[in-house]
Amino acid sequence: MKEVVAAIDLGGTNTVFGLVEKTGKIIAEDRLRTTDYPEINNFVSALVAAINRLSKSKAGIKLVGIGIGAPNANYHRGTIELAPNLAWKGIVPIVEYFRKKIDVPVAITNDAKAAAIGEMIFGGAKKMKNFIVLTLGTGLGSGIVVNGEVLYGHTGFAGELGHTIIVSGGRDCGCGRQGCFETYGSASGLVRTVLNLLSEMKEESTLRDIPPSQLTAKKIADEAAKNDPIALEALDYTAEMIAFGIANAVGFSSPEAIFLFGGLAKAGEMLFAPIREYVNQSVMPIFKGTVKILPSGIPENNAAVLGAAALAWNELK
Amino acid sequence: MKEVVAAIDLGGTNTVFGLVEKTGKIIAEDRLRTTDYPEINNFVSALVAAINRLSKSKAGIKLVGIGIGAPNANYHRGTIELAPNLAWKGIVPIVEYFRKKIDVPVAITNDAKAAAIGEMIFGGAKKMKNFIVLTLGTGLGSGIVVNGEVLYGHTGFAGELGHTIIVSGGRDCGCGRQGCFETYGSASGLVRTVLNLLSEMKEESTLRDIPPSQLTAKKIADEAAKNDPIALEALDYTAEMIAFGIANAVGFSSPEAIFLFGGLAKAGEMLFAPIREYVNQSVMPIFKGTVKILPSGIPENNAAVLGAAALAWNELK
Repeated sequence: MKEVVAAIDLGGTNTVFGLVEKTGKIIAEDRLRTTDYPEINNFVSALVAAINRLSKSKAGIKLVGIGIGAPNANYHRGTIELAPNLAWKGIVPIVEYFRKKIDVPVAITNDAKAAAIGEMIFGGAKKMKNFIVLTLGTGLGSGIVVNGEVLYGHTGFAGELGHTIIVSGGRDCGCGRQGCFETYGSASGLVRTVLNLLSEMKEESTLRDIPPSQLTAKKIADEAAKNDPIALEALDYTAEMIAFGIANAVGFSSPEAIFLFGGLAKAGEMLFAPIREYVNQSVMPIFKGTVKILPSGIPENNAAVLGAAALAWNELK
Repeated sequence: MKEVVAAIDLGGTNTVFGLVEKTGKIIAEDRLRTTDYPEINNFVSALVAAINRLSKSKAGIKLVGIGIGAPNANYHRGTIELAPNLAWKGIVPIVEYFRKKIDVPVAITNDAKAAAIGEMIFGGAKKMKNFIVLTLGTGLGSGIVVNGEVLYGHTGFAGELGHTIIVSGGRDCGCGRQGCFETYGSASGLVRTVLNLLSEMKEESTLRDIPPSQLTAKKIADEAAKNDPIALEALDYTAEMIAFGIANAVGFSSPEAIFLFGGLAKAGEMLFAPIREYVNQSVMPIFKGTVKILPSGIPENNAAVLGAAALAWNELK
């Protein structure tokens, strides 16, 4: 019998789940619509049934654990708490629901922390004990590993680098405060930077022809690749701000590497090269040259499921 | 035979050392002048001889380990590195020197990390797994404990909260950058704040009669206690800035408590009360009410030796 874990990427719209071997090989995958289940109990019943179905469709395997990556998940408590994009309100003890329906170990963590565990077990951080994964999407998530363990802190919510404040009195943030790293260093932060530069700079730019509501990080990166001056300036400023946020994180936990992941990271060397330069300018002298800035070692389309699988395998160690 | 460790507080001028039981009881103490030994080898020889002398002066004890708290110490490497206030230049492998002369385990760490271990073993953090000690002296040092272990990171230099930047483009810092937490949240930061307020405010103040070079945190706190408007405003601003630095640290490691220690912390509730208020205003909503702001649980005059003793006992566990 080959051992597998069920790895669940629980999202606001869809929940993708797979059976994953210890090597990271995904041997089967399926999905269901999260929004079809306004009651958490029904959702977990349907998901467990679907996992059992998927397991039975494969000969010679044995399910040994379940890992879940979900927004606003609390690893310590096995809960999803106050998730704005899910129908289940309040504090949802989702792990407890699973345990009533299936007799294998179940663990949950949030998306960015799952990405960090994925990087450690299957990706570019296999030999590292201290590193940070930044997910540069619409928001800016982070998973911090110290001494070989994900940092959860007293509350289970440690690792909110996206909401460390890097500009006092800066841009309004969705968290209700100002100047959070996320408002500058994410894909949406890049869009905000372009809007600001369109007001400040006089250079011509095709970005002036796109309605602000339709501006995306991808369009900006595409224009930068064609030498659009505003797109180039916006990427440079974004790199500087990401480096600034990284510099503070380096002063805190002195990681061996920072992995950049998610939509904005797809800009590639156009973003990575200036980030590396600005990081070395921004860190304290004793940290110069001590931290690598790397792309994720995990294929992006499988990242969420592999992160959840890594969580499950890591728990079974 | 009662087991003791030798606990060494290595300072630029004096080196204080004591024999300390597992309970934290200091049974003997002595000192020598650090500046008398421009050669590290002679310094370690003299110190080992003095420790052996002190041990022999007490009947029925057995030396089982040595702990050293020192500026710019690197725990991983057992070194003191580029310490500006010590005669020994470059990277000094001090633990290796000890091992050649005495056959017990020897460990070294920097002052603020020793303070954190002291808090964990002998002080107010005995039952805590996640907390931070901030030493608010001339500089701002920090010792961060996560999952019950001091955070050293990849380089051994993690935990430089005093040099996380809290005001972009802010005050010049001794580290060569601008806006570091230390330039606002330390005793010297409070003095700088008073100087700035003397320029901005028009209120009368006895602080206008003291030459800036003679202004101290203690004098400012004394004047605040007498309702001096500039001293009060300076303390309030300092509390706000300390809370701001703390809020970012909370987003990073979500500690159960922050212990404040050192000269500035002596201002007591005048400083602690507004810090508590500002911290709850400054943290992300999910962290509100999750972090205690506490005075150190270790008597200040023994803190450095007890920190070094705690390091040694912790290593022997």
